Amino acid sequence: MIVCKFGGTSVANAEQIRKVANIVKSNPERRIVAVSAPGKRFSDDIKVTDLLIDLANAALKNGDVEGKLQKVVNRYKEIIDDLEIDQTICDIIAQDLQERVNFDKANVDLFVDNLKASGEDNNAKLIAAYFNSIGLKAKYVSPKEGLVVNDFPERTFALPEAYENLSKLRDCEEIVVFPGFFGYTKDGTLRTFDRGGSDITGSILAAAVKAVLYENFTDVDCVFSANPKVVNDPVGIKEITYREMRELSYSGFSVFHDEALMPVYKLGIPVTIKNTNNPSAPGTKILPTRTLNSRPVTGISADSGFSTLYVSKYLMNREIGFGRKLLQIIEEEHISYEHTPSGLDDISVIIRSHQLTPEAEERITKRIKEELQADDVYFRHGFSMIVIVGEGMRNNTGLAARAASAISSTGANIEMINQGPSEVSLVFGVLSDKENQILRALYEEFFSPISVY
Amino acid sequence: MIVCKFGGTSVANAEQIRKVANIVKSNPERRIVAVSAPGKRFSDDIKVTDLLIDLANAALKNGDVEGKLQKVVNRYKEIIDDLEIDQTICDIIAQDLQERVNFDKANVDLFVDNLKASGEDNNAKLIAAYFNSIGLKAKYVSPKEGLVVNDFPERTFALPEAYENLSKLRDCEEIVVFPGFFGYTKDGTLRTFDRGGSDITGSILAAAVKAVLYENFTDVDCVFSANPKVVNDPVGIKEITYREMRELSYSGFSVFHDEALMPVYKLGIPVTIKNTNNPSAPGTKILPTRTLNSRPVTGISADSGFSTLYVSKYLMNREIGFGRKLLQIIEEEHISYEHTPSGLDDISVIIRSHQLTPEAEERITKRIKEELQADDVYFRHGFSMIVIVGEGMRNNTGLAARAASAISSTGANIEMINQGPSEVSLVFGVLSDKENQILRALYEEFFSPISVY
Repeated sequence: MIVCKFGGTSVANAEQIRKVANIVKSNPERRIVAVSAPGKRFSDDIKVTDLLIDLANAALKNGDVEGKLQKVVNRYKEIIDDLEIDQTICDIIAQDLQERVNFDKANVDLFVDNLKASGEDNNAKLIAAYFNSIGLKAKYVSPKEGLVVNDFPERTFALPEAYENLSKLRDCEEIVVFPGFFGYTKDGTLRTFDRGGSDITGSILAAAVKAVLYENFTDVDCVFSANPKVVNDPVGIKEITYREMRELSYSGFSVFHDEALMPVYKLGIPVTIKNTNNPSAPGTKILPTRTLNSRPVTGISADSGFSTLYVSKYLMNREIGFGRKLLQIIEEEHISYEHTPSGLDDISVIIRSHQLTPEAEERITKRIKEELQADDVYFRHGFSMIVIVGEGMRNNTGLAARAASAISSTGANIEMINQGPSEVSLVFGVLSDKENQILRALYEEFFSPISVY
Repeated sequence: MIVCKFGGTSVANAEQIRKVANIVKSNPERRIVAVSAPGKRFSDDIKVTDLLIDLANAALKNGDVEGKLQKVVNRYKEIIDDLEIDQTICDIIAQDLQERVNFDKANVDLFVDNLKASGEDNNAKLIAAYFNSIGLKAKYVSPKEGLVVNDFPERTFALPEAYENLSKLRDCEEIVVFPGFFGYTKDGTLRTFDRGGSDITGSILAAAVKAVLYENFTDVDCVFSANPKVVNDPVGIKEITYREMRELSYSGFSVFHDEALMPVYKLGIPVTIKNTNNPSAPGTKILPTRTLNSRPVTGISADSGFSTLYVSKYLMNREIGFGRKLLQIIEEEHISYEHTPSGLDDISVIIRSHQLTPEAEERITKRIKEELQADDVYFRHGFSMIVIVGEGMRNNTGLAARAASAISSTGANIEMINQGPSEVSLVFGVLSDKENQILRALYEEFFSPISVY
């Protein structure tokens, strides 16, 4: 049994949904299909989810509810007409939207979530109807039937009983069409997952039915070894381990939402990233382990928007608890951090800049100076992290030297280096102005055909 | 005004003490002299401090107190005879020792400390007497006269009033001879400093009188850029900053006890390391800042005896507080750590192995698995840390690449790299079996005359 997930562009219009049907038909093992809301059909297009947010805002502010609602219905209607399916599904969607618009607005977040989630929910109903119309026996299944999630205010995740409930989908005679992105608390309140939420739903379903494979259909042939917007024609990745995928997701390998992998990771279920528009391409396989090839590096990612908090204090390393107290101060500001490279008398904390405000920086600086009696405390901004990832890097002597040389060849100064003992990743901190140049130099070093080590 | 400190080998016998007198005489600025207990005269010799520990144990266990006490007295008597000074000082020392042996034994630590500290105390009395006998007006000053330290159980340090009290030594007409290694609490209890305690006393005195220079006399011409036991004829360091000195002291640059620098560091008082046996050699200057020369690296140190605690957990970096909780568990075992290199889903904590026991490792592992629900937790042993230090490393592009290349040239695998944003040090974790080979390769890379970058 295979669980497939189709992303927004894969279900954006009739033509795409026909491709989905063909893909599902072509392998009888594909029994469960998780779907997103209709995404963009062309680059300037507006996603249904954004239309829904617009509608929600209009409803909250007494705006043009009728017109905005009609816009959403029209997107579905166009698909329904093109697919030549029964118009009753269109009425069902219009009525569903009207009910959601009339939903209690006391809790604004719940109201907006409820409308947003209709994008996936109604698309699943539509796609199930289409499948049936072409003789592919299918059934829309609502997350109400088992996808139980935790209560507020934590980040949404599926409770253990959700897996138990959803395991019954194994026995469903029809193909299950399941909307991504949301679940329900025990008391029946709708809650949405974080970004990439349909990936999470697919992953939960795959884990629940113990699928042999979780196929994630999107609009690229594979995961690339480096950002194709920066590196010219980077090689595609055929196989990658969960761990490599995670380390790369650090810095905007945006093809897959990393949190989504958790349920399948736990069971070791393989995942493939495939292209709805080119389903015969082998795609990228994400596996618990993989056979190593001659290339030590699997991928290189780069991300800007990092700040460093620098703290120095003479004899810092003699003070048991210094690092812990420092991290506690940061934690009390609800700030997460990435790395903490340290010398003997200094430590720096790498933080994503968007979490910082001038006020928070001032509070943190003041507390560290007063409570930890540090000599020197300051923030610096404008850093990028470059991450080199590969299971083959383990025990590969000389790799760090090659990477550092390639970076230095751009004239950039290495501000930070971090290599932990897992040795599948090597992180360099640099000033952001050289980020792209460094990424290209590293790609050249590790992927260019003439630079075999 | 200059404060000089003479270490154990510099005051081990009459010949050495004559050298001390000549050094003090040769510069009238040298007004305060801190002294150690007589050290080893030859490599198999026993230091007076060790004779005193032996005596203390005998006194506690009803052993041969008389014989052991006589051994200590004889060491001083031999010096007194050789220096041809008045025998009354010998009687003073013998009586002092007898009083200390009869001291209250209820608190064993206090009893032993009290006997140990007599080594410095009586040597200061002896040296003051000798100075006077050769016409160098001198005065023994006891730490009772101002060196106030904190109470138990904290590590001993001088209280702020100690600096205030001791500042009066500026006005002393005679040369002050002051015993190193100990002070007294407010209620008059003797407390000893940590290892290298005479260095600390000298540093406190220099800070108290706001000396223009703190001269630390020992038995080497200078601090070397690398361990001379491993690297053949390493270059000496002429100037080094406090910060560089600290980073190097990390891994057994044993010439100077790093904690001792604190009082002079705070006032920016320069320190020189000089050789009692070759006082005309320029020695090594430790300064707040220094002018950079063409060499980016000032020194390379290496130390074995490190372990790593490896912890991995899927989505670790999403969990605010994970690192802090991990460090708290380690702190609750009273274990200090050196570095915490991290990936996205893993972190390792570098710990000096001597702090670990199989039981502590088991407790820590169990707690991390249970309380932090980590996927994988284990300890590994047998690591060395190699530290490359230099103010000139800042903004020196290519340096990390050169260092990593040199290490790789030995065939060693780099297990960990840590470079913080202070950029005056670069730490590599390697397996200990290659430690010496790596140190030689790095020395060759950064100090060999032909390898100018």
